[in-house]
Amino acid sequence: MITTDILIIGAGPTGLFTVFEAGLLKLKCHIIDALPQPGGQLAELYPKKPIYDIPGLPDVLAGDLVNNLMEQIKQFQPGFTLAETAENIDKLDDGTFIVTTNKGTKHHAKAIAIAGGLGTFEPRKPEIPNIAFYKEKGVEYFVKDPEFFRDKKIVIAGGGDSALDWSIFLADVASEVTLIHRRNEFRGALDSVEKLQEYKKLGYVNLITPAEVVALHGEDHLNAITISKDGNQETIETDYFIPLFGLTPKLGAIANWGLEIEKNAIKVNNALDYQTNISGIYAIGDVNTYPGKLKLILCGFHEATLMCQSVYNRLNPGKKYVLKYTTVSGVDGFDGTRKEAEKAVVKSID
Amino acid sequence: MITTDILIIGAGPTGLFTVFEAGLLKLKCHIIDALPQPGGQLAELYPKKPIYDIPGLPDVLAGDLVNNLMEQIKQFQPGFTLAETAENIDKLDDGTFIVTTNKGTKHHAKAIAIAGGLGTFEPRKPEIPNIAFYKEKGVEYFVKDPEFFRDKKIVIAGGGDSALDWSIFLADVASEVTLIHRRNEFRGALDSVEKLQEYKKLGYVNLITPAEVVALHGEDHLNAITISKDGNQETIETDYFIPLFGLTPKLGAIANWGLEIEKNAIKVNNALDYQTNISGIYAIGDVNTYPGKLKLILCGFHEATLMCQSVYNRLNPGKKYVLKYTTVSGVDGFDGTRKEAEKAVVKSID
Ligand SMILES: Cc1cc2nc3c(=O)[nH]c(=O)nc-3n(C[C@H](O)[C@H](O)[C@H](O)COP(=O)(O)OP(=O)(O)OC[C@H]3O[C@@H](n4cnc5c(N)ncnc54)[C@H](O)[C@@H]3O)c2cc1C
Ligand SMILES: Cc1cc2nc3c(=O)[nH]c(=O)nc-3n(C[C@H](O)[C@H](O)[C@H](O)COP(=O)(O)OP(=O)(O)OC[C@H]3O[C@@H](n4cnc5c(N)ncnc54)[C@H](O)[C@@H]3O)c2cc1C
Repeated sequence: MITTDILIIGAGPTGLFTVFEAGLLKLKCHIIDALPQPGGQLAELYPKKPIYDIPGLPDVLAGDLVNNLMEQIKQFQPGFTLAETAENIDKLDDGTFIVTTNKGTKHHAKAIAIAGGLGTFEPRKPEIPNIAFYKEKGVEYFVKDPEFFRDKKIVIAGGGDSALDWSIFLADVASEVTLIHRRNEFRGALDSVEKLQEYKKLGYVNLITPAEVVALHGEDHLNAITISKDGNQETIETDYFIPLFGLTPKLGAIANWGLEIEKNAIKVNNALDYQTNISGIYAIGDVNTYPGKLKLILCGFHEATLMCQSVYNRLNPGKKYVLKYTTVSGVDGFDGTRKEAEKAVVKSID
Repeated sequence: MITTDILIIGAGPTGLFTVFEAGLLKLKCHIIDALPQPGGQLAELYPKKPIYDIPGLPDVLAGDLVNNLMEQIKQFQPGFTLAETAENIDKLDDGTFIVTTNKGTKHHAKAIAIAGGLGTFEPRKPEIPNIAFYKEKGVEYFVKDPEFFRDKKIVIAGGGDSALDWSIFLADVASEVTLIHRRNEFRGALDSVEKLQEYKKLGYVNLITPAEVVALHGEDHLNAITISKDGNQETIETDYFIPLFGLTPKLGAIANWGLEIEKNAIKVNNALDYQTNISGIYAIGDVNTYPGKLKLILCGFHEATLMCQSVYNRLNPGKKYVLKYTTVSGVDGFDGTRKEAEKAVVKSID
């Protein structure tokens, strides 16, 4: 059982920054995310694209913003349960919660911050007979850990950024990479398309276009696929098949936690602390809704900050919290480090 | 008459970022500030100190944050009325406003965003007979424009950062700089104290401590001051006397605009758009109050963003605004510049 003060569901920018604001209040955080890496939409959907409306950062790549946030919260040593989906919640008699993931990992927390964004990213799945049978037996919809594919034969399908970028990346890891796309044209960053062209010429990636995967083979585990190209079929050996056809977000299990839902989002009390209809469960960032809500990164930061104050009051009833400026009081990490402004000296001049 | 869509009172971080969010909605802004430079508390009180709780900026000097914000809003060409205080407001029959400063400058706007922080900074004034008489006749409480003192004789009084830093800076501008402090010890950044020590040795700054200014002289304009040191008095010639004894913020004239005030701050509707009790007048950042309010920079950013949406709806009744991501839609400045992410290409590989 993992125990923490605030359990954050979702490692997007909102969830990450929550760790910092909680840390200033001496509250410990643990984060669950269905994705294998932190960063939410920024890391999964547009890591190499610039964002222009983060206050004080006129032009920042989404991936760099995530790195900056990870750097900022490091002092507060957040725990992570990655590549697992929060599925069940139980409220105990003492007002604390137990959240269980799809893999059975249990988390015990005094307060819950749902920062689930648009939900978990569900891969769009190709319509191939038997494909469900090969789940975790050779068909993977995410590259959770590239090392998993070391010295394996893999087939990737798709024509967008993910298919391009993973084919290029895994060319150095897998023993053989085949990329299949139903058109000749790829859609992505110019340098990715050019790099793939080069990798194809060098023989690092086998490119089969226009083509489609139509059948999967193997008794206990995938060992071959059948490709249809120009009306002809061909079967090739492979250890893994990775269809990368895009993601659609789904609120998923959280929708059944008894929370008030409106337009696929969780209703909160924006007049005070972004708490849901269940005391002790908050919803912040893209996942919540209230009159005037804007699904913007900077809004999640503010919501997280006010929420942490409310959790503090919940866990320290009657204790008055006096706001401290980081500039004046410094930041004391749970790791023993301290950030602080250079102190003024009092010094005579002669 | 200066005309604009949103007139912002206060060029602190909240007021500055408002220009960006308004610009995304094609609304023009003009900013009034009592101080000679933008940046509010950050620029006036702690420009060289680090801030640790700006999301995505683990460690940023207050002055650099202001520079970043100025860079971010540049595309939207805000107008500035600096070193003037907003004093009067008139609401016209058509729902627009005219705001007049202490210098008589008039601004006509469709909506008002009060981002006045803790108010205007009132200098603490030394108790010297006649000092009021020399206002704008040789006694200055702010260095609005260093050039104003070019080749003049000046006397600065004070023992903190401002006194240290301006003595050092103006040593290169004024013909003679004298610094008077009632103790031998100065309180400030170590390098400032050391630099002053050096400037004293080199004769760039005359240092008189422990001493006090006790009388001011001159018929139409200051021309000399009397200093008391160790019980003896001495009169020295000077063109200007600049007492830098710290600042206290005062809400000032805004407190009489008919707005609901609570704890020296303006009550707003935080459940929607940070509007005050007067339709069309909003209050954002440190200057407002509501249940759970935190006087933090990041909170002002969110408040400004939601406020701009409300102004947009006010000025475009019935028109539905569809939120656009800067990453996806880019940013079109009023100056003709455009920021945008590199476009994806659609390209075949052969
Ligand atoms: C292409 C694109 C461009 C954008 N550009 C901008 C922009 O310029 N400016 C801007 O402000 N915003 C922009 N956005 C929106 C911005 O990305 C979101 O506002 C932001 O990501 C919301 O952050 P969040 O932390 O609330 O949620 P997310 O980033 O969505 O993160 C939520 C996380 O929660 C996880 N999760 C959900 N449910 C569960 C569960 N049950 N168990 C475990 N994990 C779960 C998800 O896996 C995900 O990682 C853009 C979005 C896109 C797609
Ligand atoms: C030493 C110190 C350290 C701090 N550290 C932090 C920190 O680490 N993190 C954090 O988030 N916050 C910190 N703060 C607080 C932070 O500075 C404020 O929250 C922030 O400045 C508020 O921004 P604002 O734009 O709302 O107002 P301000 O920065 O106060 O700006 C308001 C501006 O309005 C102007 N004004 C007011 N009335 C009028 C008028 N009638 N006419 C014309 N102009 C007017 C003023 O001159 C001023 O320039 C700190 C503050 C101090 C003093």
